[in-house]
Amino acid sequence: MKKKSRFLQTPVVPFTVEGDLTADQILARMERISFQGRNLAAAHRLWRRMLEDDVTIFLGMAGALSAGGLRLIVAHLIANRYVDCLVSTGANLYHDLHETRGQHHFLASPHADDAALADEQIDRVYDTLASEEEFIQNDNWIADFAATLEPRPYTTREFLYQLGGHLWTTTHSDGILVAAYRANVPIFCPAIADSSIGMGLSQARHKNPRAGQIDIIGDIVESANIVIRRPRTASIVLGGGTPKNFINQASVQAEFYSSQVGGHRYALQIVTDVPHFGGASGSSLEEAQSWGKLSTDSAKVSVQSDATIALPLLACALANTAPPILARRKPPVFTLASHVMTIEGQTVFRDRFEEVNESPV
Amino acid sequence: MKKKSRFLQTPVVPFTVEGDLTADQILARMERISFQGRNLAAAHRLWRRMLEDDVTIFLGMAGALSAGGLRLIVAHLIANRYVDCLVSTGANLYHDLHETRGQHHFLASPHADDAALADEQIDRVYDTLASEEEFIQNDNWIADFAATLEPRPYTTREFLYQLGGHLWTTTHSDGILVAAYRANVPIFCPAIADSSIGMGLSQARHKNPRAGQIDIIGDIVESANIVIRRPRTASIVLGGGTPKNFINQASVQAEFYSSQVGGHRYALQIVTDVPHFGGASGSSLEEAQSWGKLSTDSAKVSVQSDATIALPLLACALANTAPPILARRKPPVFTLASHVMTIEGQTVFRDRFEEVNESPV
Amino acid sequence: MKKKSRFLQTPVVPFTVEGDLTADQILARMERISFQGRNLAAAHRLWRRMLEDDVTIFLGMAGALSAGGLRLIVAHLIANRYVDCLVSTGANLYHDLHETRGQHHFLASPHADDAALADEQIDRVYDTLASEEEFIQNDNWIADFAATLEPRPYTTREFLYQLGGHLWTTTHSDGILVAAYRANVPIFCPAIADSSIGMGLSQARHKNPRAGQIDIIGDIVESANIVIRRPRTASIVLGGGTPKNFINQASVQAEFYSSQVGGHRYALQIVTDVPHFGGASGSSLEEAQSWGKLSTDSAKVSVQSDATIALPLLACALANTAPPILARRKPPVFTLASHVMTIEGQTVFRDRFEEVNESPV
Amino acid sequence: MKKKSRFLQTPVVPFTVEGDLTADQILARMERISFQGRNLAAAHRLWRRMLEDDVTIFLGMAGALSAGGLRLIVAHLIANRYVDCLVSTGANLYHDLHETRGQHHFLASPHADDAALADEQIDRVYDTLASEEEFIQNDNWIADFAATLEPRPYTTREFLYQLGGHLWTTTHSDGILVAAYRANVPIFCPAIADSSIGMGLSQARHKNPRAGQIDIIGDIVESANIVIRRPRTASIVLGGGTPKNFINQASVQAEFYSSQVGGHRYALQIVTDVPHFGGASGSSLEEAQSWGKLSTDSAKVSVQSDATIALPLLACALANTAPPILARRKPPVFTLASHVMTIEGQTVFRDRFEEVNESPV
Repeated sequence: MKKKSRFLQTPVVPFTVEGDLTADQILARMERISFQGRNLAAAHRLWRRMLEDDVTIFLGMAGALSAGGLRLIVAHLIANRYVDCLVSTGANLYHDLHETRGQHHFLASPHADDAALADEQIDRVYDTLASEEEFIQNDNWIADFAATLEPRPYTTREFLYQLGGHLWTTTHSDGILVAAYRANVPIFCPAIADSSIGMGLSQARHKNPRAGQIDIIGDIVESANIVIRRPRTASIVLGGGTPKNFINQASVQAEFYSSQVGGHRYALQIVTDVPHFGGASGSSLEEAQSWGKLSTDSAKVSVQSDATIALPLLACALANTAPPILARRKPPVFTLASHVMTIEGQTVFRDRFEEVNESPV
Repeated sequence: MKKKSRFLQTPVVPFTVEGDLTADQILARMERISFQGRNLAAAHRLWRRMLEDDVTIFLGMAGALSAGGLRLIVAHLIANRYVDCLVSTGANLYHDLHETRGQHHFLASPHADDAALADEQIDRVYDTLASEEEFIQNDNWIADFAATLEPRPYTTREFLYQLGGHLWTTTHSDGILVAAYRANVPIFCPAIADSSIGMGLSQARHKNPRAGQIDIIGDIVESANIVIRRPRTASIVLGGGTPKNFINQASVQAEFYSSQVGGHRYALQIVTDVPHFGGASGSSLEEAQSWGKLSTDSAKVSVQSDATIALPLLACALANTAPPILARRKPPVFTLASHVMTIEGQTVFRDRFEEVNESPV
Repeated sequence: MKKKSRFLQTPVVPFTVEGDLTADQILARMERISFQGRNLAAAHRLWRRMLEDDVTIFLGMAGALSAGGLRLIVAHLIANRYVDCLVSTGANLYHDLHETRGQHHFLASPHADDAALADEQIDRVYDTLASEEEFIQNDNWIADFAATLEPRPYTTREFLYQLGGHLWTTTHSDGILVAAYRANVPIFCPAIADSSIGMGLSQARHKNPRAGQIDIIGDIVESANIVIRRPRTASIVLGGGTPKNFINQASVQAEFYSSQVGGHRYALQIVTDVPHFGGASGSSLEEAQSWGKLSTDSAKVSVQSDATIALPLLACALANTAPPILARRKPPVFTLASHVMTIEGQTVFRDRFEEVNESPV
Repeated sequence: MKKKSRFLQTPVVPFTVEGDLTADQILARMERISFQGRNLAAAHRLWRRMLEDDVTIFLGMAGALSAGGLRLIVAHLIANRYVDCLVSTGANLYHDLHETRGQHHFLASPHADDAALADEQIDRVYDTLASEEEFIQNDNWIADFAATLEPRPYTTREFLYQLGGHLWTTTHSDGILVAAYRANVPIFCPAIADSSIGMGLSQARHKNPRAGQIDIIGDIVESANIVIRRPRTASIVLGGGTPKNFINQASVQAEFYSSQVGGHRYALQIVTDVPHFGGASGSSLEEAQSWGKLSTDSAKVSVQSDATIALPLLACALANTAPPILARRKPPVFTLASHVMTIEGQTVFRDRFEEVNESPV
């Protein structure tokens, strides 16, 4: 046979079955298979590279991950500083709060009788149920808490930190909001108005017309300033949605004001949506490079999988392989308790962008 | 052969090809075929039923519909009052503004070289391009406009009405924002912080720390009060995302305060996402009934299709079949120019829910 | 503004709504929008180019298109020689036969009670039903017919021609099998063993151990020889599956024996499957070029859409735009009635490949 | 709070991360989360139930699983009799043969330059490559082998057994064909004509007009007779395609001739296709019940996932949990070496269905 083509260098190595493999060993074998299995293995490797490098790691989460049983994985990722900043839909934070407050979601069939459920005031998320009565109690709980706050505008970052603190004080239970509160990891929720947390805030407003002021434009400024302060960043996205774009926007917005910002250096997404209908959730990481959302030399992996399969496997694998890296890692230190946050001791303004004119090093 | 089963009543009638059929005639023939073709035909019928009934019709739009060439269809639907209230992502309004201001999106291959595009500062949305330089000019234009506004909190509804007015005054061109302004159709943008309109507002903030105040909690209150004022409603959703949920949330939130509200009476969605991963974008309309987002006896149709195929066909069909219905229709009349909007002459508060305790008629 | 980028040449032109547009006019406007709408418009243009050129056009069909109401569109495409050779799943031919014999499929909900249907012996295909009793009668009808044939091996091409003839004689009704019979368009069914036509043949075998002999390897030889005889070819695929690959395989196999064959010159696919899981149904047309299934300079369009939406629109558009081209077109002439078929008067062997050693012209 | 609803019985238990969990422990935790993670856990449980019960287990495989690195998992499932009968696409068997013969597939990017690949005669399957030259050698090898066989019709079951034996003799390497040969597990390939194995057979025909006779109608009869002989069956499907339907068809066909057959008792599918376009690959297991493909009380699980993620995890989990069950299991014993196969010592005819008129026990 003629000389091997330059294209044919690394053979597929068929996966061989063993019962006692741990998640990281399974993923190690998946590095040499194909399609999404290979991508998931590459995601494991890439996340470790992010942790080895000196980057601020953003995690975006959309889809019903909290209701679907992944909230303690996200809490674990936050508590152990696999990530440094969370951007979430409101629903994921709300369903997290629901369980942290001692309530539950419940298993069901996706073929449930929705009229019967409506009759019993039970809400369905595909194959998962929750009690509307308990949701109403959550809304009231949020409204009551929000009504106690000093009546002024809050970024979602500040509000969610306070909410996490209140949740921790009242429950001493674990969860996403609590883990972020305790680890001083900022949470942004750009679409908070499209969630039950927003509904709770609107009910606070109903009680007191000066309550429930949310300054989402301040969130844009703060998130961009985080990038300006530390221009080396990474994006990890579960499920697309507003978090995916908001994390990218932070970088694009930052670049307007600082020439040191050049797009995320790493990008990892686990999505089920596809690129060919043009929506942002399914958009490719290559496309993101055209916008400067990612640097053109960024390392990137896209995995097409339901997060309820991919994330447990990935998180368990990291739990075996990442601890030595985490031990060496110096994650950025935030203070979040007040109106104006800080990163590494430096102020992160909410009302003006930090302008940086020097060239990148 | 034995007596026909009760299940076997309405035969499929194979589609027969003719060259001179108009869109409504094509859809009429698709009523008796199967799968998504039948659903699209049913969508045409359902939309006409909404227009015949006395309901407030919400339209949600997500995905890159404006960049993708559908913005004048949406403008047409607004101007002719096929719909009464728009809920949109920020990107769709921004890309609409971009073209209304005389700029363009451009055709490209989805296999474009993103590094080369980044080098020329061109942003890609699958197979469609835009100039980043022009986007920066838009951002400035929005920032300049926002900085001229009296510095106080604005709901997105109020801000976008003002923005549409400014756009109309300066361009006298058609588009979504302009059509809504001219037809007094309210626009809500719950995730405005996750868009270039939000970026423009943040840049206004940078110029003036009191500018760029957006009251998204007020949007929740206003949208629910619209439903409380007129409890019979319909939901039309293109592409899922935050608009889909926000329209449903308006109904759920309204029901807390008014026993006359009982979920949308009609629901039509054109989506590409699927239910089985649990995300809201792809969630079924049956599931929405469990939540009370839709009434349990609502008429509903879900079409699995890219809107760039389904919407042109549907809108052209309606243009032939709906005008007599539109002529009879009495759409709700809004005033949107000030801090507090009205519907049918009644105030729609932004800081408290209108409580209605009477039983429904 | 600086000089326009070479990338920004052809602006998106937003679709404008008019009620009296015909399908071709709708598609003409969709040429300048984005995503799958643009692709469907490009498909219309590409099919006309195929008809203008001197190529043999293969049509592949998979998915439940016949049961779903598209069988008379396919019959129309065959009768009017928009296509020259059909490759189909067995189910599509069987459901076509079912209706040609005067029976029906029926409209239903996709949420039908399957236990109740099973109880009444009704078979469901998503939102479409059929009577099992009628299916059993079809199977018997096919078995009876097959048992009358001289007991020797038949390619599916020969058998399906005979079946079409028998169907025409007994029903004088239109359909895919009948149209192909009357227009002398060959049909291949490589997976006939995986269908109710195969089941009918197996029942003929049960009656007579020498009946029901199908020579599918002969189909491979014949299909490749068709390409060798006329090396300029085009592939149109609806839904992927075995037809998609078989059409490509014909070209690849032909190339082994004739240096004049160089892959299909045109390729058009309307699919719903995606590339990233590695399956052939969703594979990209670019990938097909690596294999030589398509020539590297082939014109190609891939549309991501349910065929029940895309095909009615596309076929109606062609019915307005293609007739002058069809009038000029000289489609290849087949004879199919005997053991050995011919194309343009030349024998198409079933037991050896036609070897062509000359260089291409 | 009021009494708990009957719907709210089993709470979601959020997945908690640990590094040293094995696959079965990971899946055990996924039993109480949602969406496809829960379904994959249920698949693990269901497969064990199949092994506990006295059923013949069919495994269907479609999609590029062999090229993609899963062939030794399938070989392992066959060798350890997790399954009793394989139905496969031709491509999966061909790519298995390719590697068993000592050749490889290779890792690549899905964005490879297909013109460059074509130029070097390298074939791409999404992110995986193979040498066309080696493929041509395989085709020749198959053709040479097929030409040595006694010239008479072979079911794919018989031919593939002989091919597996030849492969074992010449390579002494493991793989799907070899494992099935050595374990006396029958393989059916209903769409063999749509694969490179079919191409090899057609090239044997080219050498000798009496070679390459495949009796696919005999495959239908044999597969149904297997079900008639042992009416309790189970279906496991990876990826849909012709194997999915063929396994179902075996049961439906068997039921025509034996009242003891009542549809598969268990069904498990791991697919990426969706039901709402009507195709068989994505069709729901509920729909299959209407046809009698599955019994109306069958236990069933559908997992929406790429098999390259789901199957390694599932197979490793079974390797820990199933061995005691396998040790007790008495799988059906086949003889496959001759024209007519047997199961449990009873003849499985290929030219007539075994008619059973007694009522089921």
